[in-house]
Amino acid sequence: MAVYTDVSDEDLVAFLTDYDIGEVISFKGIAEGVENTNYLLQTMGRDAAAPESYILTLYEKRVRPEDLPYFLGLMDHLAANGISCPTPIHGCDGATLRELAGRPAAIVSFLAGIWPKKSTPAHCAELGGTMARMHEAGRSYDGHRANSMSVPSWETLIAQTQDKADTVVPGLARIIEQEFQYTAKHWPDDLPSGVIHADLFPDNVFFRGARLSGLIDFYFACNDALAYDLAICINAWCFEPDGNLNVNKARALLCGYAAVRPLTRPEFDTLPLLARGSALRFLLTRLYDWINHDSTAYVQPKDPKQFLDRLRFHQQVNGPSAYGVAFEDISG
Amino acid sequence: MAVYTDVSDEDLVAFLTDYDIGEVISFKGIAEGVENTNYLLQTMGRDAAAPESYILTLYEKRVRPEDLPYFLGLMDHLAANGISCPTPIHGCDGATLRELAGRPAAIVSFLAGIWPKKSTPAHCAELGGTMARMHEAGRSYDGHRANSMSVPSWETLIAQTQDKADTVVPGLARIIEQEFQYTAKHWPDDLPSGVIHADLFPDNVFFRGARLSGLIDFYFACNDALAYDLAICINAWCFEPDGNLNVNKARALLCGYAAVRPLTRPEFDTLPLLARGSALRFLLTRLYDWINHDSTAYVQPKDPKQFLDRLRFHQQVNGPSAYGVAFEDISG
Repeated sequence: MAVYTDVSDEDLVAFLTDYDIGEVISFKGIAEGVENTNYLLQTMGRDAAAPESYILTLYEKRVRPEDLPYFLGLMDHLAANGISCPTPIHGCDGATLRELAGRPAAIVSFLAGIWPKKSTPAHCAELGGTMARMHEAGRSYDGHRANSMSVPSWETLIAQTQDKADTVVPGLARIIEQEFQYTAKHWPDDLPSGVIHADLFPDNVFFRGARLSGLIDFYFACNDALAYDLAICINAWCFEPDGNLNVNKARALLCGYAAVRPLTRPEFDTLPLLARGSALRFLLTRLYDWINHDSTAYVQPKDPKQFLDRLRFHQQVNGPSAYGVAFEDISG
Repeated sequence: MAVYTDVSDEDLVAFLTDYDIGEVISFKGIAEGVENTNYLLQTMGRDAAAPESYILTLYEKRVRPEDLPYFLGLMDHLAANGISCPTPIHGCDGATLRELAGRPAAIVSFLAGIWPKKSTPAHCAELGGTMARMHEAGRSYDGHRANSMSVPSWETLIAQTQDKADTVVPGLARIIEQEFQYTAKHWPDDLPSGVIHADLFPDNVFFRGARLSGLIDFYFACNDALAYDLAICINAWCFEPDGNLNVNKARALLCGYAAVRPLTRPEFDTLPLLARGSALRFLLTRLYDWINHDSTAYVQPKDPKQFLDRLRFHQQVNGPSAYGVAFEDISG
């Protein structure tokens, strides 16, 4: 939860002259999201008929400005191909990306829905189906961005955290190093790939009642193995607070996905490895944030230990059936 | 900026069954306000025709639950008497106050407008006029609440801060003690009184363009000298970042007020004293928050020194004309 950058009313009004969205009637910082500054912006709309809501995002230091055209272009593309997600608003000059308060900034459409604080198997099934449709819709997107949070970045994060890792959990530096050696050595490079979201945690998935209403926050999206997105969601959605996998949730996620896009045999067989890599990725970024946390900042870092527990789970499974499905169930 | 209390989607949906405001379509924590937890709630409205916005507030520990009927009743009363302010939404049972996530909670109407990050004399004139109309409208409110942040509370705050005050500004404990002795001795008890807002800082005053569109956050409102509200606004609106009084702003505030409700001679004469007391009150609360700040909390405390500078200004003025007006200007 964070507002990193204040925007004066004069700057806001000047910024909005580049758009045809009507008079501002409200502008409030949103206490969600840990990477960027988000404001909920309401205007009277172009014809001053009824209030309209938008999200105005200022991109903070973790986002590379040169990646923004990929992200904004992707949201435009997915929205045009039937995936409910924030759509960048084009200014009078056609551009979606400009500058505000010294930051790259964009306005996107507002997405109705609330994210589930407590996930259910029904949520996971909806998520699986929507993610598969997103993967299909991404096939025709011509942008390309390597996954900046894949194996090479883990090595960097290890170098930046290994000195202090044992102060968080005794023995953690060694566990991480061994896991990295194993994962990097076996990491697949020939799975079906395409555009993945790469950060589909519950706070990025909106529901209206039981139905998924949209996906948000595409600022880790990239081209990578499609099944890696599934592995991330197993970690992000399917573990209970007590640390145990909820097999019903994992099964719902995988079957929901496969009903739209069946998995290949190599994808199925690689799930435990992908889940290990994904757990290691979030363990490392959370560990980095934990160690480097500025105590005067607004954001509370998330406990990295959660992902250590998940990593340990994936290390000990006998195979992908641990996630509640047989290959026959999800191969179409 | 703060969200102190998380609300699960199940709890929210259960809470809203007591209201007739339609399906929830959005629920986002707002990164403003330092006392309570505020969510911007959007629903499809009773007839599912168009999105409607509300604010859902969870009252945190600084608000005494027994005061809430006074605050909510006041907002209802002021709104019914032409003052634009959030209006409590009555549930199906007629009640405006209930409980959510273990906190007292209420839904109020959403007020269009944005607060000025940089105040101008024109803002101050608008504020003065609206505050005077609010004071007039408050005359017929039958609730009563003593000002919990007046002289007796200063003594308590001094006792809680005097040990560490000098670590913030050398000599501060003595300055505060002397000022308290003077202010408490001379504090008036016979000025025209009524309902005051008592916290009309810029972030509680919304504008649409040049026009004031509403007042929010009545959770310090109380019965006290009406001119004390003016003194608070002199401190909150009329000083520049360099610490100097902007006489144009003070004059605009006072003349804007007096055009609706002329000041009495004792009110005018007492302005410097009321301004000193108000500066001391905010100096003390900010000092308390500064000293007792939990470094892991989301809220950054505000620097108390600002109000020490303002206090010093009011201590050295020759009389109320320092605020840019003569009695003839504002006595109707």
